[in-house]
Amino acid sequence: MIRRLAILGVGLIGGSVALALKRAGQVQQVVGFGRDRANLDRAVDRGVIDEIAPSPEAAVAGADRVLLAMPVGAMAGTFVRIGPHLEPHALVTDAGSTKQDVIAAARAGLGPRIDCFVPGHPIAGVEKSGAEAALSDLYEGRNVILTPLAENTPATVAAIAALWTSCGAQVTEMKAVEHDRIFAAVSHLPHLAAFALVDELAGRPEAELFFRHAGSGFRDFTRIAGSSPAMWRDIALANHQALVAELDAYLSRLSAYRDALGAGDADGLMQSFTRASEARKRWQPNGNHIENDE
Amino acid sequence: MIRRLAILGVGLIGGSVALALKRAGQVQQVVGFGRDRANLDRAVDRGVIDEIAPSPEAAVAGADRVLLAMPVGAMAGTFVRIGPHLEPHALVTDAGSTKQDVIAAARAGLGPRIDCFVPGHPIAGVEKSGAEAALSDLYEGRNVILTPLAENTPATVAAIAALWTSCGAQVTEMKAVEHDRIFAAVSHLPHLAAFALVDELAGRPEAELFFRHAGSGFRDFTRIAGSSPAMWRDIALANHQALVAELDAYLSRLSAYRDALGAGDADGLMQSFTRASEARKRWQPNGNHIENDE
Repeated sequence: MIRRLAILGVGLIGGSVALALKRAGQVQQVVGFGRDRANLDRAVDRGVIDEIAPSPEAAVAGADRVLLAMPVGAMAGTFVRIGPHLEPHALVTDAGSTKQDVIAAARAGLGPRIDCFVPGHPIAGVEKSGAEAALSDLYEGRNVILTPLAENTPATVAAIAALWTSCGAQVTEMKAVEHDRIFAAVSHLPHLAAFALVDELAGRPEAELFFRHAGSGFRDFTRIAGSSPAMWRDIALANHQALVAELDAYLSRLSAYRDALGAGDADGLMQSFTRASEARKRWQPNGNHIENDE
Repeated sequence: MIRRLAILGVGLIGGSVALALKRAGQVQQVVGFGRDRANLDRAVDRGVIDEIAPSPEAAVAGADRVLLAMPVGAMAGTFVRIGPHLEPHALVTDAGSTKQDVIAAARAGLGPRIDCFVPGHPIAGVEKSGAEAALSDLYEGRNVILTPLAENTPATVAAIAALWTSCGAQVTEMKAVEHDRIFAAVSHLPHLAAFALVDELAGRPEAELFFRHAGSGFRDFTRIAGSSPAMWRDIALANHQALVAELDAYLSRLSAYRDALGAGDADGLMQSFTRASEARKRWQPNGNHIENDE
């Protein structure tokens, strides 16, 4: 049982952890800190948090578990502020989409207390934000990846894993570098690729003509281009090293398609499209009813 | 009322036209030709077509309307075969996703009869295929683009437009070159971009690791990578000129992102992501509930 949980950043992600742990009877008190007072008031109204802290320092005072659930770009400053105020027995985790940069920020901010920090990444969310959107079952059956540090004891990792499993999540562990490489490929790059297409078309004088004729393929391909610009700017910069490597591989693939089109290389295109189509169907053979209106 | 409609290629697209016109009471008899005998038998069983023709030539004999609904790569040979066998009053349309190449094939195959051909592109479909998948309401409320030729009389265009509106579709007209440019951007490029990402990951030794961690953003971004490789090879090659231009613009955008990541250009990324996000939300402000599990 967590006695006092501090949620720093009471949005969908942090708020849902609070609600899930409350529903599971695994937390006595939740204190929240955030920049948006109206959002915090709403969080209290909805019973997401029990108390609003005036600062991160005040939030972690007396807390045995601390969750950083703000944009990754804001974590470095928070680690610096909370480091000196953490209780001796406090354990800290986060919900950032990138891990190596968060770990570097934690090392810089927490100093000798780094052993209490177990980095995490819950693979869950909906494109809504704020405490208003928090759901007690957001993590039910979802994956949470932990990237434990050499400094963490097994008991520390187990305690943070227990926090997430109490929310209904399945916890897996991997190295931070591996995490960042995987998510650069399957998440960060697709976001950039979707932003790039929409910005390209939106910037044309005839943008309206293009959008008017866009169908369900375009709709799904670009869905994630509706995501938060600030969040994805932070993620892209935080994970720029792995992301540039993925962008280079992708640019190389697309250039090869360009060459194949120029050369009329039907076989080359067919082979690549076939490998992709088969892999895509293997990945999600069912539950994927596809409208294809092009 | 169409007395005899010849459907060349009795799949989802062609079969749905037959069913829609029958439901509307706008056709007396439908004859079908296709390569797959079992599919044609199924089309007869389902009442999609009334008669199986042994050849394209036989199918168009006596037909006052002819629909080419096969892959665009197969149309050139079909125009050559049916040209000499078209009835004097016959009118022809097609359902190809590219238009300039189909028009070139029609000019080559139909020769002096080119005036009877009104090119079309129904923006409808589901990722199912075959006569089995044909639906009488597939075109209900969907757009069909016609790209009439200089040789078409207004009466000819009106008659083909009537065929599609009888299916429940809304018909608009544009120039073929404009059609191909628009669909290169909003449909053909996204398909190549999705194929490219999936093939890139599928070819890696650790492919399974990447796919295991892919979430809903990846799912939607790559949905169209499950499409028919042969169909998209044909479309890509048929529209290669416009598609290469779009690929170049896209490569340039992605390269700019790469440069911005390398330079830590937070403002540049933020501006582009914001333009994209706002344009995407304007395009589809509602009805787009978004899971974003990254």
